Amino acid sequence: MSEEPRPAPARASRPAYTGLLESLPAATPFVGPETLERRRGGAFALRLGANESAFGVAPSVLAVLREEAARANWYCDPEHFELREALASSLAAESGGGVTRDNLVIGEGIDGLLGLIVRAFVEPGQAVVTGLGAYPTFNYQVNGYGGRLVFVPYRESGENDLDALLATARQERAKLLYLANPDNPSGSFHGRDALAALLRDLPEDCLLLLDEAYAEFAPRDELPPLEPEDPRVIRLRTFSKAHGLAGLRVGYAIAARETVAAFDKIRLHFGVGRLSQLAAAAALGEPGFAAEVVRRVEAGREDYHRLGRRLGLATLPSLTNFVAFDLGSAARSIRMVELLDRRGVFVRRPGQPPLDRYVRLTVGTEEERAAVAPLFADALDELADERLETAS
Amino acid sequence: MSEEPRPAPARASRPAYTGLLESLPAATPFVGPETLERRRGGAFALRLGANESAFGVAPSVLAVLREEAARANWYCDPEHFELREALASSLAAESGGGVTRDNLVIGEGIDGLLGLIVRAFVEPGQAVVTGLGAYPTFNYQVNGYGGRLVFVPYRESGENDLDALLATARQERAKLLYLANPDNPSGSFHGRDALAALLRDLPEDCLLLLDEAYAEFAPRDELPPLEPEDPRVIRLRTFSKAHGLAGLRVGYAIAARETVAAFDKIRLHFGVGRLSQLAAAAALGEPGFAAEVVRRVEAGREDYHRLGRRLGLATLPSLTNFVAFDLGSAARSIRMVELLDRRGVFVRRPGQPPLDRYVRLTVGTEEERAAVAPLFADALDELADERLETAS
Repeated sequence: MSEEPRPAPARASRPAYTGLLESLPAATPFVGPETLERRRGGAFALRLGANESAFGVAPSVLAVLREEAARANWYCDPEHFELREALASSLAAESGGGVTRDNLVIGEGIDGLLGLIVRAFVEPGQAVVTGLGAYPTFNYQVNGYGGRLVFVPYRESGENDLDALLATARQERAKLLYLANPDNPSGSFHGRDALAALLRDLPEDCLLLLDEAYAEFAPRDELPPLEPEDPRVIRLRTFSKAHGLAGLRVGYAIAARETVAAFDKIRLHFGVGRLSQLAAAAALGEPGFAAEVVRRVEAGREDYHRLGRRLGLATLPSLTNFVAFDLGSAARSIRMVELLDRRGVFVRRPGQPPLDRYVRLTVGTEEERAAVAPLFADALDELADERLETAS
Repeated sequence: MSEEPRPAPARASRPAYTGLLESLPAATPFVGPETLERRRGGAFALRLGANESAFGVAPSVLAVLREEAARANWYCDPEHFELREALASSLAAESGGGVTRDNLVIGEGIDGLLGLIVRAFVEPGQAVVTGLGAYPTFNYQVNGYGGRLVFVPYRESGENDLDALLATARQERAKLLYLANPDNPSGSFHGRDALAALLRDLPEDCLLLLDEAYAEFAPRDELPPLEPEDPRVIRLRTFSKAHGLAGLRVGYAIAARETVAAFDKIRLHFGVGRLSQLAAAAALGEPGFAAEVVRRVEAGREDYHRLGRRLGLATLPSLTNFVAFDLGSAARSIRMVELLDRRGVFVRRPGQPPLDRYVRLTVGTEEERAAVAPLFADALDELADERLETAS
């Protein structure tokens, strides 16, 4: 190699992407409230669109974060040993001790784990079945690995159509069947009998991916039993909701031990940092906090249902930290989101029928609920004045 | 769906993994010190094996972490807008303003970005060239996406063999050429003329992946110029080293704007949490701290070189936060790591010749260096008594 100057970059051509990446359209799984705030030129007064916990973090978690901040210079344990041990203990009541450390994978939120699971199971072109309008990041991950998404519409009731999901999975020879339970964006929930039947009828070579981000908000005895060594099911849970640690990105998968070992071959070993791991383990040590959050969220949902009744809007039953309000049509729902935005309120709406006529409000604190109610009523008045079509 | 009990999991068979995952052997990119501590049944007194910063985090970073811990319940900005803006400003001096927000991708440490880049550019079976014994996580990611690793031995001097890397890339029609500069595990560094020649002679359709985790420790005017719109180069940097934020997992890539847009189609949008983003941005706001770390690390390297001379061990020149000591043979190096472990000292050693005869010590604080010197000398005495072969 001599020392001539290199050619100007303008002459350089880009190395080719993979064929798969080349084929993908631009995609954004979620536009965050920060992006919306930059666009609208100001912060939201009420942040009720991302289903974040309004009830903060446990005092012991706060103490750990403040104490261990000075040790941010240390890498994390790539085995997540302490956190997985703490999780196995914490799940003992639900699992009868059947979930051990070897049944647990920690990831960068459920989002990171969805990518890992799709990568592990789905070859390009294989079918993946999910609800039409269900979790966008799952779809994003399936597309990103070349899977073929097949969508099954929700029922008019707002529930996932388990029969249709199953039939479609069978017909398409689907590799994955995704179900959020309790569901986002509807809030609906299927109890253990329905899940047992779904699992019984699951086609061969199809994995049931059960996204239980909102598990803590459902009745414990209606969650399907934790049987981690059933290799046809992976359950996904998170510290982002009841534990209020969304900003630390810690999710976990409960899976067969052999599946966990397979993930170890491809997972990002240093994806979840030291502070995140310590905070999550601390949260498990203070279960009363999450239980109290669940109670306060339940009270908040009741407030929202009452608000809906008072304003003449139907609401969907929910076992999550949000409630969906029926605006009657997609056009009215879209407009309602805009009208709330103008009033400083960040909310989201489902994008696909039949749920696209709803607007979804995260349960806020007592103060936030008191603040949003008159703004919501006022926005609804303005919407009524605009005489938009009510048919969807 | 009826309500019969589902069959016992024992009858269930696992859905198939992808062919690629099925073909992968078990792999662990790094065994962390926490794992070693569990095996040895006690904490290390001196943690000098993971090239973590010994000099903590900046006061402003600590303040942000402690202040914002209470907001751990909020999700992060998936666009990393503020952090990318802060980075573009911070890089302005080095880049002449040529690096904008649109040239930057934030990831879960350089490890996460390595996965993203391999996934974006490498089809299964395509060749990837790297140094034999270079960064294990890069190899792990290449294997995980089905790339074909081709290794080029380091020179006896401990430097990467740029001519051989180039020749191999050309011969194998490599898709990626990986180079850490300054290098891990050797500490060696190639200046801007060598890098300009490497880039000039880079084969067509080959991406130069320049891992600059230790960029802050190299002379600024010897780093290759930042020309982000050259699509044949991606530079990787991190907050884990000079900034001391290894536990928060924040790395960044500097790439052509079009490449950044392509990554947006497949990257994990919610992988780097809110606290991590805020802490990294705060670190950029206090550049004097990292500069002081670099000075203290330089003084520490000098201590280590002196220690080597005193003990009759050659050391490799280093522009990183570690120094490699020549133990004369792989067998002696392996044994030295054990003898240090027995004395409560965690160090690592390169695993491949010719570097496998070295032991690598991270620069500790003044106190840690004072503590490790007699332990190192004592271990070396014991090693000499054992009369192991000195030939490698």
